[in-house]
Amino acid sequence: MTNKVKEIWTSGQVVINGWLSIPSGFSAEVMAQCGFDSITVDLQHGVQDYHSMVACLQAMGAFPVTPMVRVPWNEPGIIGKVLDAGAYGVICPMINSAEEAEALVRACKYPPRGARSNGPVRAGFRGPGGAYQATANEQTLCLPMIETRAAVENMEAILDVDGIAGVYVGPSDLGFSYGLTPKLDRDEPDIIEIFRKLLRECEQRGLYAGIHCSGPAGAKRAIDLGFKLVTLLSDIGMMASAARQWVGETRGGGGQQG
Amino acid sequence: MTNKVKEIWTSGQVVINGWLSIPSGFSAEVMAQCGFDSITVDLQHGVQDYHSMVACLQAMGAFPVTPMVRVPWNEPGIIGKVLDAGAYGVICPMINSAEEAEALVRACKYPPRGARSNGPVRAGFRGPGGAYQATANEQTLCLPMIETRAAVENMEAILDVDGIAGVYVGPSDLGFSYGLTPKLDRDEPDIIEIFRKLLRECEQRGLYAGIHCSGPAGAKRAIDLGFKLVTLLSDIGMMASAARQWVGETRGGGGQQG
Amino acid sequence: MTNKVKEIWTSGQVVINGWLSIPSGFSAEVMAQCGFDSITVDLQHGVQDYHSMVACLQAMGAFPVTPMVRVPWNEPGIIGKVLDAGAYGVICPMINSAEEAEALVRACKYPPRGARSNGPVRAGFRGPGGAYQATANEQTLCLPMIETRAAVENMEAILDVDGIAGVYVGPSDLGFSYGLTPKLDRDEPDIIEIFRKLLRECEQRGLYAGIHCSGPAGAKRAIDLGFKLVTLLSDIGMMASAARQWVGETRGGGGQQG
Amino acid sequence: MTNKVKEIWTSGQVVINGWLSIPSGFSAEVMAQCGFDSITVDLQHGVQDYHSMVACLQAMGAFPVTPMVRVPWNEPGIIGKVLDAGAYGVICPMINSAEEAEALVRACKYPPRGARSNGPVRAGFRGPGGAYQATANEQTLCLPMIETRAAVENMEAILDVDGIAGVYVGPSDLGFSYGLTPKLDRDEPDIIEIFRKLLRECEQRGLYAGIHCSGPAGAKRAIDLGFKLVTLLSDIGMMASAARQWVGETRGGGGQQG
Amino acid sequence: MTNKVKEIWTSGQVVINGWLSIPSGFSAEVMAQCGFDSITVDLQHGVQDYHSMVACLQAMGAFPVTPMVRVPWNEPGIIGKVLDAGAYGVICPMINSAEEAEALVRACKYPPRGARSNGPVRAGFRGPGGAYQATANEQTLCLPMIETRAAVENMEAILDVDGIAGVYVGPSDLGFSYGLTPKLDRDEPDIIEIFRKLLRECEQRGLYAGIHCSGPAGAKRAIDLGFKLVTLLSDIGMMASAARQWVGETRGGGGQQG
Amino acid sequence: MTNKVKEIWTSGQVVINGWLSIPSGFSAEVMAQCGFDSITVDLQHGVQDYHSMVACLQAMGAFPVTPMVRVPWNEPGIIGKVLDAGAYGVICPMINSAEEAEALVRACKYPPRGARSNGPVRAGFRGPGGAYQATANEQTLCLPMIETRAAVENMEAILDVDGIAGVYVGPSDLGFSYGLTPKLDRDEPDIIEIFRKLLRECEQRGLYAGIHCSGPAGAKRAIDLGFKLVTLLSDIGMMASAARQWVGETRGGGGQQG
Repeated sequence: MTNKVKEIWTSGQVVINGWLSIPSGFSAEVMAQCGFDSITVDLQHGVQDYHSMVACLQAMGAFPVTPMVRVPWNEPGIIGKVLDAGAYGVICPMINSAEEAEALVRACKYPPRGARSNGPVRAGFRGPGGAYQATANEQTLCLPMIETRAAVENMEAILDVDGIAGVYVGPSDLGFSYGLTPKLDRDEPDIIEIFRKLLRECEQRGLYAGIHCSGPAGAKRAIDLGFKLVTLLSDIGMMASAARQWVGETRGGGGQQG
Repeated sequence: MTNKVKEIWTSGQVVINGWLSIPSGFSAEVMAQCGFDSITVDLQHGVQDYHSMVACLQAMGAFPVTPMVRVPWNEPGIIGKVLDAGAYGVICPMINSAEEAEALVRACKYPPRGARSNGPVRAGFRGPGGAYQATANEQTLCLPMIETRAAVENMEAILDVDGIAGVYVGPSDLGFSYGLTPKLDRDEPDIIEIFRKLLRECEQRGLYAGIHCSGPAGAKRAIDLGFKLVTLLSDIGMMASAARQWVGETRGGGGQQG
Repeated sequence: MTNKVKEIWTSGQVVINGWLSIPSGFSAEVMAQCGFDSITVDLQHGVQDYHSMVACLQAMGAFPVTPMVRVPWNEPGIIGKVLDAGAYGVICPMINSAEEAEALVRACKYPPRGARSNGPVRAGFRGPGGAYQATANEQTLCLPMIETRAAVENMEAILDVDGIAGVYVGPSDLGFSYGLTPKLDRDEPDIIEIFRKLLRECEQRGLYAGIHCSGPAGAKRAIDLGFKLVTLLSDIGMMASAARQWVGETRGGGGQQG
Repeated sequence: MTNKVKEIWTSGQVVINGWLSIPSGFSAEVMAQCGFDSITVDLQHGVQDYHSMVACLQAMGAFPVTPMVRVPWNEPGIIGKVLDAGAYGVICPMINSAEEAEALVRACKYPPRGARSNGPVRAGFRGPGGAYQATANEQTLCLPMIETRAAVENMEAILDVDGIAGVYVGPSDLGFSYGLTPKLDRDEPDIIEIFRKLLRECEQRGLYAGIHCSGPAGAKRAIDLGFKLVTLLSDIGMMASAARQWVGETRGGGGQQG
Repeated sequence: MTNKVKEIWTSGQVVINGWLSIPSGFSAEVMAQCGFDSITVDLQHGVQDYHSMVACLQAMGAFPVTPMVRVPWNEPGIIGKVLDAGAYGVICPMINSAEEAEALVRACKYPPRGARSNGPVRAGFRGPGGAYQATANEQTLCLPMIETRAAVENMEAILDVDGIAGVYVGPSDLGFSYGLTPKLDRDEPDIIEIFRKLLRECEQRGLYAGIHCSGPAGAKRAIDLGFKLVTLLSDIGMMASAARQWVGETRGGGGQQG
Repeated sequence: MTNKVKEIWTSGQVVINGWLSIPSGFSAEVMAQCGFDSITVDLQHGVQDYHSMVACLQAMGAFPVTPMVRVPWNEPGIIGKVLDAGAYGVICPMINSAEEAEALVRACKYPPRGARSNGPVRAGFRGPGGAYQATANEQTLCLPMIETRAAVENMEAILDVDGIAGVYVGPSDLGFSYGLTPKLDRDEPDIIEIFRKLLRECEQRGLYAGIHCSGPAGAKRAIDLGFKLVTLLSDIGMMASAARQWVGETRGGGGQQG
């Protein structure tokens, strides 16, 4: 088991990440053929649950994309199920303190580092017995989300928790918690300054930072800032964007209001 | 029960049609908010079956789009189920003769015109008892596909079958049957001539012709030819198109090979 | 394998039949605890397909009701699947001639009488190998629907087809085909006369006739006429009836318009 | 986004609430046509999970009923998913203290009041970006359940928690916790006295109280007591009630024991 | 697109085929890791339908097994859907005449040989546009089942139909049609003689014959006879066999009656 | 409601337990016909969630096996749902202290012992109102898992918690927590000594201990040690074991590497 995201990061490159909100193995397997390095099934805000996630992971299995999952919450039951199902990375929302980050790591890692329960029903089926468990702690990525004022204030302590591979930034929640409108691709100087600090702190610890973007423009700005993983909105967002544009063009205009 | 497609046609306008290949109510309801006049669930080449179609129809119910369905084949069982579920139009592939068109109409229409069995489980639930049945033959559209050399040769006889509301052209199958490469947006003069003849024959009979297009450019050309319903590829096609373009732009290029 | 419907008929009693339109094992298992003798999953006008039917059959398995299925059409593929899944009776819509009835019987029966393919995946799992096949032709009921003017005109020929256990009447389609409004519980003298003739012809051949009714009142009249199986509307119909009545009573009135 | 339940309450009227235990969009959409003001999907005791809830919400979308959801437990992950999916109200079981009520409100409300994460995947899709978030805290209802002795003892403190719109009473659990048989429509004087106190305390704070009832009779008594939302058992309960009654009537009696 | 079954056959080897009756992508992907050359989803007697088949095909996609499908019946709608979904082979039951074989081939093959409709939604997604269609007629296998006395009598005519790649024998139906007990692994001399003739006729035409077996013993005998594809019972059959044996051994005996 | 596992234990016998990882009612009902005394749906490491569990429970309902469920985590929401759905036993992973065991018991038991919420949607439907609740605390089994060093150290305190019926041992996690390779059927003397102590402590308290085994050999050793419930791997494990063996035998060898 090797993790392509880790390899890209180690090589100094940036990961282009897809995002699955549609609960369908069919849209998942098509997304997996569109050029992404990794694809994340969103169990939090996506229209997904455990079984639709399994379908997405199965459908992506034939293609060279690294499957990751955002869990709905920092709860050990679902974190274990997601990893057992074969996620190579766990993105966990709303990690606001070192204690929460520690609980997340414990749920993600086998002993001795953590308390993940053994039973990698899909993840460990392929190889010889025990092979998955021998490298899982190293190969699967634990990525807490930094997306609140509290998390920013506890940034260093969170990043110091042993076992995380990096962080994932939720820009709309982050802005929301600072009293700003929830949106992606933020450009408020204060927020940018938070990003810069986060990126510095990550770099000092050998960690990698990812961020959710609304599209190529925002993603490029994030890459320029130093983010090492950029997500391009979502499957449903891209579909709706194209649909509105195509309908508008067909009607004779250049787009259309949603 | 009124059919927006009929109203648009009567008003002399063109219907912009969406196409659902993803078996998910979620993508269906998002498509229904993107500006289409009608949306067709594709039970033939889409990754759809009866239950995913019902989910799509339910999810679209809150929005002012006319739901239609392409059935997998000219078979009375599925045609009845599709109409009972609330389709306002039935597109049927591979109608190559007047006999096949007649069988299709019989499956689509209640007595006395046809032999559709009574039981509009979703379609007729809303109104008072019997209201749906009183207007269904008139309000639901029966649209045979003209997509083979045989159909072209039998064109007039097919169009003469009482009860069809128009036809739907499958350009890739049509070209295929003439020995050409299967693709949409055809521009071979012989094919264009077939289109022109079909449109004339339709117009003489008060019928409407629709066609499957790969996007706005092809749709505009089809509208210019005289087609009254144009389909913009599909949900999955639009998603993949946007995904490849966005990934390419983020990587620094302007697109990507499929 | 014994068939409770057959036993009730042999004893001279009437079968009270439930009807499943809701595609859910949960509603099916609750219906199975409400006192019906048999329960039929409706693949034609119900919101059902093969897999929801299997779920309904599985959920009913714990209770002493005989499971039957109405297929969407006289097509051997689905008839075989329904029987393999454990249906003890097949109700088939729109049988209008002896030829159609013969095709139905052939699809329902193993050799030598018919051409049903061997593979009773659920039906035959329980007993020792071959036990199901040894009695299936006798124990599973083949019930063509008599529901059109054509079927009435061909009544004797249809009933003469060896292998049918009886018939099932669809009163709304029957009326529809005679130019009447589609509804259950018919009382037009001409229709009643058809019923009487059908019941006589059945009795002479040792066949049993069932009929779809809108509720207890219609069912009692049908029993008085001589029908030996009466269906009480459907799961969804009973739910909606109760819901409207309860809402109306709570609001202070005695019911409510749909 | 406007919430019909809020409007009815503001107008001084009572909300008649339906209840969905059957995991099917089809039964949900039929319930939505039976006259209820609001309909609640029950993720706790109903045979429901996240995806069947989404199907129910989608299927109800075409009808003027306010969709609400009872979550299985006071857990932020599922509460966020339920609201993102479009619930206009969250009923949460077993809230026994002000601390638990505060945690519930925080999970239900966006900043600054709470910590709900931004991403209203279905709820916010319709309007322009940010429109949903601007009014969601006000328009979506947070309804803790008062259903234990502990909750009764902490009643005032729970009701004082800012952000709740009212409470929902579970009479069977409430009685159970006092050593009584679990049942709806309670008439024990001590329980009635608790109801009266709860209704007074709610009224003083501008809150609204709802309650689960077994049918119209109990609902009317609850309305007379001052409850402003009454639930009529459930979809499955109404179906089973009608089924047993109809079978009994058809057999010649007046009902039947379950 | 290359077909491993064809390659094995061309090399003179025998294909070991798995069989999926359980409607689950999870059991499918595990079967795909157990050493089979090809795996067939059984839409006829398996508890499978279109969507469970898609899930099985998706889940097997990551592994080097050739996916095939047995369709429920010789009906063009489902045959097209199965191929569009990515089946590399179609096994069709109950082909009893050259006419039926010809209809099957027409449904399986694109023009000019056949009339398959263009739209390989999963099958053609991977490669560049048109690539799948260019080789599909050659690479996908059309395998009629020889499993009745009628088919045996029409054997040569069936085998002469251009476009079939071989045949698949259903031993239990074959025996059934000759008045024998339905079972696999037949050893009646008359049946063996039919097998021998079939194998000779296939060999003369460059066709390959497969057969359904109950396990390794029967499979070895079939290979010795000359069959080039042997199926080992099914997923559910292997599971039940192991379960009964393990329970029996644990209880102290050596197996157990079902 | 009687619990066959309790009866077997009371009679001094050992329970042979099956294990469901495949999310399918079909494989569940077949497992239920293979001789097991009880069958457990695994929501933790199995590819299962709430709805697939319900399907498994429904499908097993016709057979005399006791249905149990392993929940994914010690969380009251899912524990309540599992019991409401009809589980006769709850196995809960990773119970490491008396506090955790007490929380588990409270979630499993109705008042006055616990705080389980009333609403046994499937469990209580069959009998007369209130009958299920009257005996559920006694008849449903609460089985914490002992599978970590911490649990071993807190063994007596955990076993002293009133309301548990026994314990279930996860040998692979237990070994893992002691720094050993995760595997079943452990034979390290230190681990065996832990088992012996656990069995003694259980016996002194009238509790019963179960354990997960890889097959008959391990199960027999566990029975010899004194375990009163032995699980035979899982549905998927048995299927894969048989498949690999059969493929290997057919190819001419005696098995095959996975």
